[in-house]
Amino acid sequence: MTRTTSTTDDWRTLVIRKREQLDAQIPSEWRLTEEFLASIPANGRLIEADVVRGSGILSEIELDITENYSASELLVSLSKGNLSSVEVTTAFCKRAAIAQQLTACLTEHFFQRAIERAQFLDEYFQREKKPLGPLHGLPISIKDSFCVDGFQSTVGYASFLEKRPASHNSALVDMLLRLGAVLYVKTNIPQTMMTGDSDNNIFGRTLNPHNTHLTAGGSSGGEGALVAFRGSILGIGTDIAGSIRIPSLCCGVYGFKPTIDRIPWGGQVADLAMEGIPGLKPSAGPLAHSLNDLELFMSTVMNAEPWKYDSSASAAPWYPQPSDDQQRQLTIGVLPESKDFPLHPPVKRTLQTAITALKKKGHRILHLSENPALDLAYANRLAFQYFIYGPHIDHIASSGEPPVPSVAKMSSPMFTGPFPVAMDLPPFEKIDALHAARNEYADAWRKTWVENGLDVLLAPGAQNTAVPHDSFGWPPYTLVWNLLDYPACIIPYGKASKELDPEPMSVTDGVQPSYDPDAVDGAPCAIQVIAPRFQDEKCLVAARIIDRDIR
Amino acid sequence: MTRTTSTTDDWRTLVIRKREQLDAQIPSEWRLTEEFLASIPANGRLIEADVVRGSGILSEIELDITENYSASELLVSLSKGNLSSVEVTTAFCKRAAIAQQLTACLTEHFFQRAIERAQFLDEYFQREKKPLGPLHGLPISIKDSFCVDGFQSTVGYASFLEKRPASHNSALVDMLLRLGAVLYVKTNIPQTMMTGDSDNNIFGRTLNPHNTHLTAGGSSGGEGALVAFRGSILGIGTDIAGSIRIPSLCCGVYGFKPTIDRIPWGGQVADLAMEGIPGLKPSAGPLAHSLNDLELFMSTVMNAEPWKYDSSASAAPWYPQPSDDQQRQLTIGVLPESKDFPLHPPVKRTLQTAITALKKKGHRILHLSENPALDLAYANRLAFQYFIYGPHIDHIASSGEPPVPSVAKMSSPMFTGPFPVAMDLPPFEKIDALHAARNEYADAWRKTWVENGLDVLLAPGAQNTAVPHDSFGWPPYTLVWNLLDYPACIIPYGKASKELDPEPMSVTDGVQPSYDPDAVDGAPCAIQVIAPRFQDEKCLVAARIIDRDIR
Repeated sequence: MTRTTSTTDDWRTLVIRKREQLDAQIPSEWRLTEEFLASIPANGRLIEADVVRGSGILSEIELDITENYSASELLVSLSKGNLSSVEVTTAFCKRAAIAQQLTACLTEHFFQRAIERAQFLDEYFQREKKPLGPLHGLPISIKDSFCVDGFQSTVGYASFLEKRPASHNSALVDMLLRLGAVLYVKTNIPQTMMTGDSDNNIFGRTLNPHNTHLTAGGSSGGEGALVAFRGSILGIGTDIAGSIRIPSLCCGVYGFKPTIDRIPWGGQVADLAMEGIPGLKPSAGPLAHSLNDLELFMSTVMNAEPWKYDSSASAAPWYPQPSDDQQRQLTIGVLPESKDFPLHPPVKRTLQTAITALKKKGHRILHLSENPALDLAYANRLAFQYFIYGPHIDHIASSGEPPVPSVAKMSSPMFTGPFPVAMDLPPFEKIDALHAARNEYADAWRKTWVENGLDVLLAPGAQNTAVPHDSFGWPPYTLVWNLLDYPACIIPYGKASKELDPEPMSVTDGVQPSYDPDAVDGAPCAIQVIAPRFQDEKCLVAARIIDRDIR
Repeated sequence: MTRTTSTTDDWRTLVIRKREQLDAQIPSEWRLTEEFLASIPANGRLIEADVVRGSGILSEIELDITENYSASELLVSLSKGNLSSVEVTTAFCKRAAIAQQLTACLTEHFFQRAIERAQFLDEYFQREKKPLGPLHGLPISIKDSFCVDGFQSTVGYASFLEKRPASHNSALVDMLLRLGAVLYVKTNIPQTMMTGDSDNNIFGRTLNPHNTHLTAGGSSGGEGALVAFRGSILGIGTDIAGSIRIPSLCCGVYGFKPTIDRIPWGGQVADLAMEGIPGLKPSAGPLAHSLNDLELFMSTVMNAEPWKYDSSASAAPWYPQPSDDQQRQLTIGVLPESKDFPLHPPVKRTLQTAITALKKKGHRILHLSENPALDLAYANRLAFQYFIYGPHIDHIASSGEPPVPSVAKMSSPMFTGPFPVAMDLPPFEKIDALHAARNEYADAWRKTWVENGLDVLLAPGAQNTAVPHDSFGWPPYTLVWNLLDYPACIIPYGKASKELDPEPMSVTDGVQPSYDPDAVDGAPCAIQVIAPRFQDEKCLVAARIIDRDIR
């Protein structure tokens, strides 16, 4: 039974009850004391301040497990029995609980159930003398939009609080469990899942652990914050406009948006929008601390026959790349800066530093010239038109909750020009015209790729770094690759610095953030690596080469 | 400039002019004499009567080239210089010219240009001491819907006769040329490309070379007839409801419908329908004389980076299968016969013979039980609703030409039940409802596949063999796999026989053909092998095992 309006309870009452239920999942010994909370530095730099160690909640071994292993390394230790899943899971549960208390990065969390699952896996290992699967014992965090049997997927809509808990797992959740993973938390998102601020009236606002005065990004902002905090070693987000990549670049972690449907999407929270209407489709993908771990996730899931779990999943397996690929000299196109979306000085500087380093290593760098057929603002207006041309279902008004500030702001790229297609066309004509416009844009990119012999494209992930709350605005540098369904990877690289970039930069269009050297000082910077559709393997191989050669 | 109505010329005048232009492309020495034509047996069995040899037009070497080599073997000889491309091309041009005179299987043909291309390739080979590419020198025939620079793509619409010749190549045509192939003919289709009879007012009706009183199938009927006649060793068709597989089963050749967009589709004749409207999408694929040649085409094209030619093409490469796969015992599901679409006795008999042979070879045969969630008639009604729910563009009325009989008949599966989705829903609601219905159907098949551990599914390709003209009707056993986007392969197997199946079978729904033992005696029979979406490689590997083990 699904009800979307309540006749008995005010939305506030439902939210209070939900928060109480969730808070009760955190054991008292994992709670931060008032005294400790008062000691948190006012600059909000939780990671720099090493608050986890300071809290005294994790043992030395737990600190080591959460700080000094990659996911791949944890799996090696788990598969050899050097670490138990209970040890690893407990360590990440504790750290996630701390992250939740300081950054509101979680939605549902179920630590006790996770530890029971870990016990089951440890017993399996002892009995069978082998791991259950390639992800044996590894805790993995997932965005709230994934369904886990027994838990709600409210995605931050108060109206969804009245829905029953899910009675099924999303296809990917089924796969992860079958592969041996441990689920322990779902992570926070923005109301509507369509802003760069993971803020909603149920779970509150996710803060950036590098600097709690800055956004963690969105919509997979809970994942970004949790992974950066090392409360998760591997997290799963989704991305229809940048929702994996924006939190990654804001929180200084690696993130990958695959080609649509290579990671199975099926069985996520329903009723969010009409389905099957032509438009942009979201893609599920990983956030992690290394390219190795991104590839671990991609290859493990894709080689486990996703089509068996989800009829809409692409069955194309992960295509192994030649082993000498790491030695290759790449031809790297550089996306020109859009005059409509000027880059903030730290973004420009770190991108330039990367280019210089790559040139030095012998890679061929091609600065693509400005080409009206590839115009970034046009692509964003086209994507925006796809987002809004169909019927809209309002899940906010139905409960009476207010829109959060970043939703109320209603950012759009329409300050840059007109809609690509007449808005008053009848539905089928409009679909046809949007399709033609998108094909033409995709074809211009195809030609650019072929004529220049590009391996990958290098671009900023956004005009800006993480910025103060509710100012992120529209994400042109990520969305364009969703329009094209190109896989794209965020590599964290460098930091914003008020010493190196002391001049503020004011942007006055009401959509984009200005550059405030004091506000973002120390925020992570990042670059984005892009490959054509279905070339996820090549995108990650090139990203590894680039990640190695810019250090 | 595109005009779709004429103010000056009646459509008949345009057709006469077109036919004269085309006829002039056949040199007089390749023309069949009146005397020879009079000697053609009245039973229309051109292949049995060995008319090509009888015509005296081909030399012994040319007969050998066209009759005793596979495409793969021709390529070996061409790449070693044992055969020249001019020799091979001339042989197939001659044979195609004879096929055209006897079966009306061609639309555009350009023999002179083909031989010039072959000369160019031979000179290249002599000069460079290597082939131009993996298809060096091989003549390949293609369906009329593909665009070739300098030639029309009328697809049988008189109104399209006023369009200028194409000024571009379709993406696949560009690829074939780049790979070294020789193009020499485009092949006939039905008016609308949506019937099982390749008949239109421009190019006339394609006849089945096994028996000219029977249909060659459609919509790639010209390919079916030409390949069966060995006027082509490798042909390319397209399939949105069975249009590769129906001509294959009617004409006794191998045919493969790949997953959508694995073979690039882009740049085909435009303006046929609105684009981007959710629905079934057509797939391009090969017709040939062996599974080896089908796989040759698939692997060669897909490993040549289709994405560089077509931004809508999937870049997933041809995934090599384990080399011991040919030794595998398969788990083969058998599709139950639909009560709405009963099988003709020869189809039932040959399918049973295949099953018996496969069992004997140790394969596991699972007769799937009837399951309402997999109902074939429902799937066909859903596909039909997708075909008709959007705006219709009428290219017939605009010239004043009449519909051909198979178009006028307007076959549909609606005699089996209601539309799955209410027809009076507004457009977006209807798209949403159709999408949900299709997902549910696809999910039922996914579960069936997984729960039964199927490798492939075995099914008839149609209820019937080739049947008398204009009686083919609706193709339920091929269309269902288009609805699901499953790759599917036709294997020719056995013959209709009035001795073995002497009892007629009457079907009175006005849509499906009855079984007339005399009329179809000797017509080829076939089986169909199906795999889930994106498992084209697995489909062809299993088809090879099956093809070997049923002989």
